[in-house]
Amino acid sequence: MKTTKIDFVIQHINEQIKNRSLMPGSRLPSVRALAGLLNLSISTIVEAYERLAAQGLIEAKTGSGFFVAGPIAPLSISEIHPKIDRSIDPLWISRQALEAKQDILKPGCGWLPDDWMPHENIRKAIRKISKANNSILTDYSTPLGLPALRELLSRRILAKGIEVVPNQILLTDSGTQAIDLICRYFLKPNDVVLVDDPCYFNFHALLKVHQVQIIGIPYTQTGPDLTVFADAIKNYNPRLYITNSGIHNPTGAVLTASTAYQVLKLVEQSNLIVIEDDIFADLERHTAPRLAALDGLSRVIHIGSFSKTLSGSVRTGYIATKPEWIEDLTDIKIATSFGGNNLSAEILFAALTDSHYRKYLEELKIRLAKAMDSTIKQLEKLGINLWIKPQAGLFLWCKLPEHSDTARIAQTCLEQGVILAPGNAFSQSQNFKNFIRFNVAQCQDSRIFEVLSHAIQQEIEQSE
Amino acid sequence: MKTTKIDFVIQHINEQIKNRSLMPGSRLPSVRALAGLLNLSISTIVEAYERLAAQGLIEAKTGSGFFVAGPIAPLSISEIHPKIDRSIDPLWISRQALEAKQDILKPGCGWLPDDWMPHENIRKAIRKISKANNSILTDYSTPLGLPALRELLSRRILAKGIEVVPNQILLTDSGTQAIDLICRYFLKPNDVVLVDDPCYFNFHALLKVHQVQIIGIPYTQTGPDLTVFADAIKNYNPRLYITNSGIHNPTGAVLTASTAYQVLKLVEQSNLIVIEDDIFADLERHTAPRLAALDGLSRVIHIGSFSKTLSGSVRTGYIATKPEWIEDLTDIKIATSFGGNNLSAEILFAALTDSHYRKYLEELKIRLAKAMDSTIKQLEKLGINLWIKPQAGLFLWCKLPEHSDTARIAQTCLEQGVILAPGNAFSQSQNFKNFIRFNVAQCQDSRIFEVLSHAIQQEIEQSE
Repeated sequence: MKTTKIDFVIQHINEQIKNRSLMPGSRLPSVRALAGLLNLSISTIVEAYERLAAQGLIEAKTGSGFFVAGPIAPLSISEIHPKIDRSIDPLWISRQALEAKQDILKPGCGWLPDDWMPHENIRKAIRKISKANNSILTDYSTPLGLPALRELLSRRILAKGIEVVPNQILLTDSGTQAIDLICRYFLKPNDVVLVDDPCYFNFHALLKVHQVQIIGIPYTQTGPDLTVFADAIKNYNPRLYITNSGIHNPTGAVLTASTAYQVLKLVEQSNLIVIEDDIFADLERHTAPRLAALDGLSRVIHIGSFSKTLSGSVRTGYIATKPEWIEDLTDIKIATSFGGNNLSAEILFAALTDSHYRKYLEELKIRLAKAMDSTIKQLEKLGINLWIKPQAGLFLWCKLPEHSDTARIAQTCLEQGVILAPGNAFSQSQNFKNFIRFNVAQCQDSRIFEVLSHAIQQEIEQSE
Repeated sequence: MKTTKIDFVIQHINEQIKNRSLMPGSRLPSVRALAGLLNLSISTIVEAYERLAAQGLIEAKTGSGFFVAGPIAPLSISEIHPKIDRSIDPLWISRQALEAKQDILKPGCGWLPDDWMPHENIRKAIRKISKANNSILTDYSTPLGLPALRELLSRRILAKGIEVVPNQILLTDSGTQAIDLICRYFLKPNDVVLVDDPCYFNFHALLKVHQVQIIGIPYTQTGPDLTVFADAIKNYNPRLYITNSGIHNPTGAVLTASTAYQVLKLVEQSNLIVIEDDIFADLERHTAPRLAALDGLSRVIHIGSFSKTLSGSVRTGYIATKPEWIEDLTDIKIATSFGGNNLSAEILFAALTDSHYRKYLEELKIRLAKAMDSTIKQLEKLGINLWIKPQAGLFLWCKLPEHSDTARIAQTCLEQGVILAPGNAFSQSQNFKNFIRFNVAQCQDSRIFEVLSHAIQQEIEQSE
């Protein structure tokens, strides 16, 4: 009789662990509490806990009770792939930066400071929409999204040399969602996907959700390394290549016309689809070649958003591709998010068509160029070298002396309220231990360089 | 020279058919209108239409113009699974309703008419946000989403008897995205998922994207059929059960307390996680039991949105579940959409905290009750019977005589500009060939019943 009760408790706890009501590391109910809850004697619970501990499923910690031992069955993203150090875990850096309070300094984050953004432009757009037709305020979006915005985007995309009509444009809720929809359309688990090494760190996080194999192609100062790219195509039969067009994140390099041409020739001889993420388009000073322009939107899918230059709060992205794919992607969009956020699309349309946006962009580019110069000077004082001097944009990709561990430096700086972006967070190969990405617009507070200087000093002492 | 112009028109129409600007069965612009629009002669358009008709792409109907011939190319999602008749294809119905022009009547769609929605409430909220702090207008959202809205939602969810704190709530861009994130977390291809039969049709479309096996559990007037539910658990080891709480879509039935209790007991003995979609919560007149309340958010995940009662344009949904799962779901959200739409969250918060919203809901419920009564009377005149008289909500689930084919009736009505929702669009078993769902708020135009009456008459003649 007693055995049955003990088994019952064991089964109960086992099930809670299995279904994750109790997670690894979490505390079990106290013996007394569980006895009360299940209306069983304390000795029954004690015996059940002891047996579970003997099985290694739970652990006793002196004076603080019983805890679930890890790990459990795979499910979460970090468990799908080998666990990585939190300080270079892309998701952790994203969440840290997104959660940061106003007084935290964020040279490691990927966006402009609050007070650099075009608030009046957005306010005006929002006020305009507050007077719009009823249907704009409450109706679901049409499947492809706001026709006027798609019309405008088609003209903007045409200006980059990419031939497109509005019906080849699908609005999404963000640039990230645009990539995600394309991944859902083309990828199945274990497919091989090429990314630049280094690349925007959320590409890694996103691809992990799709459970694919990621191959990093070294990014040179003119684009991806063509030899490695060709070899990867030959050896792995990859399905997708995700890259930035225009200004590359994190390096600030720009694809040259001849590299673009060579990349496309290799793509044509393969099964590759290319996603070209054009998120930094509006920060360019000279329009770099677009793969989608050369390719005529045949295998290259062009995506973008305005999170960096207009608002990260009013979110709308887009996909430009051939009509057949737009059709299928629209179905996936409706199935997984029903409609898009039409209000955001309306606000973006109003903001983009206001003449103020162009003026703001001109000023922003000048401001960024100045910030880049002053940041470079500050970094030089600390003996930090640029990998390349970027044409424009937000980022400086910097190399510290060979022995440095920028993840450790980032950890030290975080304790002082400064969030950095260490090199390996951007890297599949993990070959960028001594690199850091700086956002020049977020480097305008001299405290950053004081904290950084101390952290580097400490790092030198530690590594000696 | 003339040939080129004709070819141009042919290509123009072809493209519109291909990209679904013109759907199968829809009417082409009149010859005169298109001639004016394209600045071409009437004879050019006539010749182009004639050639398209000759190719079988369009059809002339005497006295009423040209119509697009159906069907069109199948989609990728429908290719993943066996092809289904377009007229009961959930995605097709969604897209059709979303694309419908203002003058199309939509008794088959799932939302309130434009002029029933609380525009002044939303306008006021938008005006308020246009004066908000800069950071609200341009910053990315925090990982979980606007704290004030999560606080408010936790109180609203508590009022339904579900114990929850704000950190157990994750904001999403829609109720559909909420379900999609949970599916990404728990499901892998070929897992078995239980849904109600019938259920909200987009559940099928969403689950097809996840490439899982769908098992329909017959929905009775008190909830899912418990015997079939128990058998399905025993035979298929399902991972997930997706259902509505409160008013069930499409049936309008409500889960009783005793069925809820029995469902939970079965769930506890299984590997099931339950998603309870509470999207119609604000339309209830008496609060039905919530599975999440009984279960204490252990295995039941509570999700919802305000698309039905506030706006389908300002999109924000939520997930309420245990803290560990919130953590992992947040990682997946950031990886696949980076941040949420913070502006929408701010607008919803402002709209929900305005006293007007409660008043509007009270009036809405009265208006819906009246619309329900009048719709029932109209349907009775046509000999259409209710499967159940719902307590509240938008929908009437109606049974036509055994031999009727509501997909065929829907096709006939569509040609007359009336979009219906035939029963099998909601059904995994395809046992609802003679059922239709009516949205009472969209049934206030008597033309619907005239068109429906003729279509039923035609159906009787055809089936005799």
